[in-house]
Amino acid sequence: MKKTLAILFMCVCAMTAFAQQALGPGTGIVSPEINADNTVTFRYQNPKAVIVRLSGDFLPQRFVDMEEKDGVWTYTTEPLEGELYSYYFMVDGKRQLDPSNVYMNRDIATWTNIFIMSTKPGDAGHYYMNNNVPHGTITKIWYDSQNAGMDRRLTVYLPHGYEKSNAKYPVLYLLHGSGGDENAWSELGRTAQILDNLIAEGKAQPMIVVMPNGVVRNPSAPEVNETNMFQPTMTNSRDQDTKPMEDEFPTIKKFVETTFRVKTGQYNTAIAGLSMGGRHSFAISRRYPGTIGYVGMFSGAGSGPENEKELKALFAAKPKLYWIAVGSADGVKVSASALRDYCKEKGYPCEYYESDGGHIWKNWRVYLTLFAQKLFK
Amino acid sequence: MKKTLAILFMCVCAMTAFAQQALGPGTGIVSPEINADNTVTFRYQNPKAVIVRLSGDFLPQRFVDMEEKDGVWTYTTEPLEGELYSYYFMVDGKRQLDPSNVYMNRDIATWTNIFIMSTKPGDAGHYYMNNNVPHGTITKIWYDSQNAGMDRRLTVYLPHGYEKSNAKYPVLYLLHGSGGDENAWSELGRTAQILDNLIAEGKAQPMIVVMPNGVVRNPSAPEVNETNMFQPTMTNSRDQDTKPMEDEFPTIKKFVETTFRVKTGQYNTAIAGLSMGGRHSFAISRRYPGTIGYVGMFSGAGSGPENEKELKALFAAKPKLYWIAVGSADGVKVSASALRDYCKEKGYPCEYYESDGGHIWKNWRVYLTLFAQKLFK
Repeated sequence: MKKTLAILFMCVCAMTAFAQQALGPGTGIVSPEINADNTVTFRYQNPKAVIVRLSGDFLPQRFVDMEEKDGVWTYTTEPLEGELYSYYFMVDGKRQLDPSNVYMNRDIATWTNIFIMSTKPGDAGHYYMNNNVPHGTITKIWYDSQNAGMDRRLTVYLPHGYEKSNAKYPVLYLLHGSGGDENAWSELGRTAQILDNLIAEGKAQPMIVVMPNGVVRNPSAPEVNETNMFQPTMTNSRDQDTKPMEDEFPTIKKFVETTFRVKTGQYNTAIAGLSMGGRHSFAISRRYPGTIGYVGMFSGAGSGPENEKELKALFAAKPKLYWIAVGSADGVKVSASALRDYCKEKGYPCEYYESDGGHIWKNWRVYLTLFAQKLFK
Repeated sequence: MKKTLAILFMCVCAMTAFAQQALGPGTGIVSPEINADNTVTFRYQNPKAVIVRLSGDFLPQRFVDMEEKDGVWTYTTEPLEGELYSYYFMVDGKRQLDPSNVYMNRDIATWTNIFIMSTKPGDAGHYYMNNNVPHGTITKIWYDSQNAGMDRRLTVYLPHGYEKSNAKYPVLYLLHGSGGDENAWSELGRTAQILDNLIAEGKAQPMIVVMPNGVVRNPSAPEVNETNMFQPTMTNSRDQDTKPMEDEFPTIKKFVETTFRVKTGQYNTAIAGLSMGGRHSFAISRRYPGTIGYVGMFSGAGSGPENEKELKALFAAKPKLYWIAVGSADGVKVSASALRDYCKEKGYPCEYYESDGGHIWKNWRVYLTLFAQKLFK
C-alpha cells in the first residue's frame, strides 16, 4: 500500500495542470553555486534569449554579460569575501529573478535573489548564516495602539532559553528605514542570525530585540495588511511628519515591558535604526532623556544646533553610548558628521564610526553586528 | 534640516548603483488589479517580448494570451469568486514572476505570485484575508530533539490574548506535505488568518496551532537552514521511512506542553495534515491511541486492513472526530475512499468529506477552515 501511495502521489504531481508548476521539481539548474575557491557561478536556462546579463552587489561594474552554451547562460565571479550578496538577471533588457534560487529578500516593493557565503571564521557572512548554535525565537505579535488607533504588528527576537527560564532580559528597539516594515530587520537585516551567533560566541549579551513597524499610520507588512494587495513604496511610508514614531514609541515600550520578561530602566534599554529609523532613534532619544542608555543611528543622524536644548538634557542623563555610523559614500554622511562635530564642540560623548560604501543593507548589517556587541555591558 | 535630509535620502536612492534597483520605486505598473466587477486585470511591461501568456489557477485553460499595447501586456479575467489565487507569466516561453506584485508564496522550490479577493461575506477569500479582527501571534521557535539529534524549528500560532492571560488552550498539530516545511501552513495555508477570522466570528474555539517541520532529518525551512543555500525538493523531504514523523511526534508534543500554556489530554489535542502530513496524522493517531481526540487527513489517508489491530485500539479509545477529506479529482481519492469504506464495514465513526478539485492548496485551506470549526467543542 505504501508503494501504491507513493506512485499515486507522483501521478498527482504530473496530473494537476497548475499544481504541476507550483509543485514542480525546480529548474534542474544549480544557481548560484559557491565554488571551493570562493568564486560563484550563476546559471540561467533560456535558449531564446538574445542577451542575458547579471547584476549583483559583488560586481565592480553594474552589469556583466553571461555566456550562453546549449541554452544555459553562465557567469563565474572572481573569488568573493564572506557576505550576504544580492543579484538578479537582466534578460533582453528585463529584470528577472533566478528561478533556480529559492533565497530571496523583498526590499520595499522589489524582490531580489540573495546568497550567503563565509570564507573564514568571523567574517560578515559567518554572522548572517544559521550556524549550529542555540537559536532564539522570532515572534510576530500584534499590539493595540491607542495612539495609532489600530492594532499594529511587531517582530520580536527572544534569545535562546527565554521560554524555559524566568530570567529578565534587556531590550534593543531596532527601527527600519523608509519603505520598510516590521519584517525588514529580521529578513534583510538577519537580526536573528547575528544575535544567535554573537550570543553563542559570548560577544553580545542575551537580549530581546523589538522590531516595530515605523510607519505609524500603517499596521503591518503587506502579507498581513488589512489593505488587501497593499503595495509598499518609499513615499507611502515616509510619514514621520503626520504620525511621528516618537509619539508611538511609549505605547510600544509599554506593551513590550508588560508582555515580555524585560529588564527596565535606562541601562537596560537601547534603540537603533537605519536611515529613517536612525532619525527616529535620534528623535526618540531626545524626546525621552534618561530612559534609553544606548542609541545607534545607522546612516541617519540629525542636526545638533536645531536640537540644542533636547541634546543638552539627553546627555545630562548620561547615556552610555551615542553611536553615529555612516558609510563614506553615503549621502547622509553630511548630517552624520555634522552631528559628530557638534557633539565634539559641546563635549558630548558621541562615538562616530565610518565604513566604506553607501546607504545599503550591507552596511546596516555590519552596524548591527558592531552595535549589539557594545550593549548592556 | 528635515527638508534637506529628505532631499538627501532621495539622492541616495538615485545614486547607489545596485541599491537603485533594490530600493527602486517598483515598476509603476498596477498588477494585478481587482476590479469593482470582480474581474481581475494583469499587466506586464515588456516592449521586446514576442508572446506573453498568463497561467493561473482561476483560468479554465492552462494559458491565455495577453494583449500588447505600448509595450504593456494586459489580460482581464471573467468575474472571479472570493479565493486566494496563484499565477505567473510566460514570456517567450520562460516562466516569469509579476514584478509589480510583491505578494508571492514559495511552494517547495517554486515561487508564484498570489492575490486574494473576497466577493461576499463568508467566502473562502474572506477567511484568508487579514481582516480587522484581533490577531494571534506567529512564533518561530526551536526545540532540542534528542530523537532527531538536532535543534528543529516549529511555527506556532497563539490565539489573540494568549500573552495577556493565564488561560490554557487546546492544541492542533498541523502537518505539511512532501517538499514542505514549517512555513508551509502559515504561508500557503493562511493558518493565522483562517484561525483569527474563525475565532473572531465565534466559529472556532481559541486554540494553539503547532506547525512542525515534518521532514525529521531536516531542521528547518531553507532561509534558516544550516545547510547554506539548501534547495528544497519533493524527494529530499519524503523521508518518512528513514526517520518517521511518528517517532518524532512525542518530542514535539512534550516540548509544546512544557513551553506553552496548553490544555492536555485526548479531547484537547488534535492533529491534521495534508498529503504526506495526512499520512503522518494517520500513522501518529494509530501509534498513540487515546491521546488525540480529533484527527484530520487532508488528501492523505491510508489503508484499513493493513492497520487493523491499531485502528481497533484507536477507535476503542473513542476519538471525537476521524475526518477524511479529499478532492474528487485527487489521485489519492482511491485510498481515502478505501479507508472510508473500511471504517463503515467495521463500524468506526469516520467522517468523509469530498470537495471538487485535486491535490491542491485551495482544497487544503478549505479543509482547515472546516476542520478547525469541529474542534474542542
